[in-house]
Amino acid sequence: MSAFSSNPSSAPCNNNVGFLQKNNSLEERSRIVSSFKEKHSSSKNLRSCENSDTESRFRRAETDFSNLFARDLLPAKNGEEPTMQFLLEVVDILTNYVRKTFDRSTKVLDFHHPHQLLEGMEGFNLELSEQPESLEQILVDCRDTLKYGVRTGHPRFFNQLSSGLDIIGLAGEWLTSTANTNMFTYEIAPVFVLMEQLTLKKMREIIGWPNGEGDGIFSPGGAISNMYSVMVARYKYFPEAKTKGMSAVPRLVLFTSEHSHYSIKKSGAALGFGVENVILLKSDERGRVIPADLEAKIIEAKQKGYVPLFVNATAGTTVYGAFDPIDEIADLCEKYNMWLHVDGAWGGGLLMSRKHRHKLSGIERANSVTWNPHKMMGVPLQCSAILVREKGLLQGCNQMCAGYLFQPDKQYDVTYDTGDKAIQCGRHVDIFKFWLMWKAKGTIGFEQHINKCLELSEYLYNKIKDREGFEMVFRGEPQHTNVCFWYVPPSLRGMPDCEERRERLHKVAPKIKAMMMESGTTMVGYQPQGDKVNFFRMVISNQAATKSDIDFLIEEIERLGQDL
Amino acid sequence: MSAFSSNPSSAPCNNNVGFLQKNNSLEERSRIVSSFKEKHSSSKNLRSCENSDTESRFRRAETDFSNLFARDLLPAKNGEEPTMQFLLEVVDILTNYVRKTFDRSTKVLDFHHPHQLLEGMEGFNLELSEQPESLEQILVDCRDTLKYGVRTGHPRFFNQLSSGLDIIGLAGEWLTSTANTNMFTYEIAPVFVLMEQLTLKKMREIIGWPNGEGDGIFSPGGAISNMYSVMVARYKYFPEAKTKGMSAVPRLVLFTSEHSHYSIKKSGAALGFGVENVILLKSDERGRVIPADLEAKIIEAKQKGYVPLFVNATAGTTVYGAFDPIDEIADLCEKYNMWLHVDGAWGGGLLMSRKHRHKLSGIERANSVTWNPHKMMGVPLQCSAILVREKGLLQGCNQMCAGYLFQPDKQYDVTYDTGDKAIQCGRHVDIFKFWLMWKAKGTIGFEQHINKCLELSEYLYNKIKDREGFEMVFRGEPQHTNVCFWYVPPSLRGMPDCEERRERLHKVAPKIKAMMMESGTTMVGYQPQGDKVNFFRMVISNQAATKSDIDFLIEEIERLGQDL
Repeated sequence: MSAFSSNPSSAPCNNNVGFLQKNNSLEERSRIVSSFKEKHSSSKNLRSCENSDTESRFRRAETDFSNLFARDLLPAKNGEEPTMQFLLEVVDILTNYVRKTFDRSTKVLDFHHPHQLLEGMEGFNLELSEQPESLEQILVDCRDTLKYGVRTGHPRFFNQLSSGLDIIGLAGEWLTSTANTNMFTYEIAPVFVLMEQLTLKKMREIIGWPNGEGDGIFSPGGAISNMYSVMVARYKYFPEAKTKGMSAVPRLVLFTSEHSHYSIKKSGAALGFGVENVILLKSDERGRVIPADLEAKIIEAKQKGYVPLFVNATAGTTVYGAFDPIDEIADLCEKYNMWLHVDGAWGGGLLMSRKHRHKLSGIERANSVTWNPHKMMGVPLQCSAILVREKGLLQGCNQMCAGYLFQPDKQYDVTYDTGDKAIQCGRHVDIFKFWLMWKAKGTIGFEQHINKCLELSEYLYNKIKDREGFEMVFRGEPQHTNVCFWYVPPSLRGMPDCEERRERLHKVAPKIKAMMMESGTTMVGYQPQGDKVNFFRMVISNQAATKSDIDFLIEEIERLGQDL
Repeated sequence: MSAFSSNPSSAPCNNNVGFLQKNNSLEERSRIVSSFKEKHSSSKNLRSCENSDTESRFRRAETDFSNLFARDLLPAKNGEEPTMQFLLEVVDILTNYVRKTFDRSTKVLDFHHPHQLLEGMEGFNLELSEQPESLEQILVDCRDTLKYGVRTGHPRFFNQLSSGLDIIGLAGEWLTSTANTNMFTYEIAPVFVLMEQLTLKKMREIIGWPNGEGDGIFSPGGAISNMYSVMVARYKYFPEAKTKGMSAVPRLVLFTSEHSHYSIKKSGAALGFGVENVILLKSDERGRVIPADLEAKIIEAKQKGYVPLFVNATAGTTVYGAFDPIDEIADLCEKYNMWLHVDGAWGGGLLMSRKHRHKLSGIERANSVTWNPHKMMGVPLQCSAILVREKGLLQGCNQMCAGYLFQPDKQYDVTYDTGDKAIQCGRHVDIFKFWLMWKAKGTIGFEQHINKCLELSEYLYNKIKDREGFEMVFRGEPQHTNVCFWYVPPSLRGMPDCEERRERLHKVAPKIKAMMMESGTTMVGYQPQGDKVNFFRMVISNQAATKSDIDFLIEEIERLGQDL
């Protein structure tokens, strides 16, 4: 009767091992191992040993999802088993994806044009319909969604300031979605609200504000954090703008460098300043703002009768990775009584490194700071903080005292409720993954990550600065991990600097990028900047990247670009 | 040599069955089964059958996490096995949490005051430190975070407009965090960008705009969606405000009802209109705006020389669940050439129901609509859409044409890039869980969910409208699932309506709520409204709720309030 007696005990596993040995790809192997696992946990052989319902319900079993639908899952009656089986199946898809993401033999992406995906790929149909699909189809859709996506955690994905797939951060996000709550009150997010408070305080300490005093909030991204800074600055100097609007205050102007992030201009447009009143400052050849230009433009604005309100200093510009000289800007802000904001969305992470934090020297003099852990610190998207030195401004600026949400007569200390500080009502829990990563790595773990990324970019810089066919966009070692360069194909190397060369060089990076994406081997961004034609911007924030990936990138650019 | 020959084949499972039978709680049982599973997958018995490394690495095994750290996980060398073991352990915690959430014998919350959690609960320490914690501690932290949180998916959680834990939505969020990408370009989110596009079109079709034409974007929440509507309205009528600011345009006024969401006022403050230029309209006793009051106030504003720009009609107010008469408001918007926005953050979901969508009649005449699937449709937070009838406005309003992000010379059709429509730069993927739920439920699945929630609120209304000790805040059947009522304890029942009674009644709901939270049995919101003292606002969007939960709520309020 026992399956064990009817089978030689070692036979099935030997069979499986043999099967495995024939297959070399990790993907293939993991699929087989999964199916092996399924068979073992549901086959008659083992069933005979696990014939109790109570036992088998919580293990992954072979489930026929083709006859199951969303309505069969919890809270449906008897929904527990299909729910668990479905979730475990999803987890199997996800863990396979995670594994493959770190495997360099996996492509970064499997590129398709929009029309191709819209027409439907082998049973992957994006259209929504009246009737439900089976859970089997839903699982196929999950697999296909990942298949046709981009592996932003792949060691050779360098396309964005946010890259990498941190396992602790991922676990944190899974938990966050399972908890599915809202940051607006302590009442429904007690633990997360406290984590946010403690983490923001720690960040303020690291910025250098005395005792970590001040305020802050996590927002849905750096652009909105920057928008907060402009709002709070306006409220500090012209609180009447909140009630009476921008027509009741003098013409206010904001200053930011030509290399800064476009979100300052977006804020100017959105908040009623007008883009014309966002004055762009000149940068030096390295992308750092020129303080003398700031002072000249402040004086010019005042002569016109405008009121200089706000200066944004960027700590880590998007393209060059430049750090504006914060101390010199702070002097001018003090002299002219202006708000100093530091946009450290990209470069704020360097504060965690004793070796590199001097690049943000003077940040402790800022009135507000944007700092996105989802960029340089490798936290999953979205995780951005706006930190404000003066307490009470965020609340004063944004509160509307909605009685239905923020009842003063609750049984707990309602100063912990955060909703009235925010421009949002409901607010996603962005803190947990970050808090968990900090616990798991320690402050020193973040420091090591930052230092390693900067070492890698130094390695890249040293490798290409004198290499044939490579031309640096600016001289000298980059301040951040941004390395900006042109690849000059052999056909252009002899050519003098003329309009034709510029035009042809302008097309090189887009062509190489297109080929990269179509071959799926790696991804790196490019753009023009000012009068400079398209160049590659390499950035490293991915903890999976190594020197060999840098070598690969260089060789891949040469391989794809040699005949252009 | 074989473990199978050295053990009678049925012995170990019989032992386990016996053990299981002694334990009755589901929680206890699931823990045992997990540990049974662990033992079986890692015990010597089975190991002998699975002694190949390639086989055993992908199954959950007994792992000693006390000596493992984040640095041992992928991308570390040999990081694959600990990574998989760690993730599976996290999933075990999460699936246990999911199971218990749907179990009515589980508490909704285990309430603690902020100072208690801050002081540290039995080894749960929120403070961040220099040095890393072991993965064992990280797992403990995950368990504790859930333990001290609030189960927003519990069948008896009625505290917020967003409630419930949809399993498909949850799976969608897990996948989204694993993909960890960014909506700003097709380049790095091809599938998600197309899903967003198709889903927004479907939503516009359901609104009733011809062929689903128009535009839209998912934003981080209803408040920001509403903010978009005001920005786009301003851009449509006064595009120069984008470049020159609010001081270059006439004094613009916005209209919204006194019952509407505070985000319209927040938008007025943030965008430079000023709160004083957000004119509040009177509502009837049911919370619906009075169109005659709107017209009177439009005329009054014009007489003062102001320009009426924008009317917000709420489809489902936050407290009463009232639907403003959209058609009548649309007539006035046409007559006075104003932008009509419908804030359907809460009530938009009713469009999915053939039975209830008439409550939003006229919505097809709106210029823009806010619709939060994360509320009435049960999608996990965050998922909010702003939909705009006229194409091109979102882009025109927000674009800054940042060359480093939105290169026109990419190899694919860059009109699919969404970044320049948004006030954000990076944008979280909010679409996938919603798209997946729609696939899994079908349009009819959402319809059934909506209808069921409204039936439940009707059940509640009928049950308490004449019940002793209950007093309705407004007469007649609610339009949405909001049921607003006072519980009048026996001590107040005989008392005539005087200031003392009002003062005492005002304190009843907060007291009952505090007791509810401390006993952890259920959660429902309360608030004052206008001159009405604190009353309970019951809302139902949780698919797990049943009539028995409604009965429970009523009895629990009576139990807790009888001696007040």
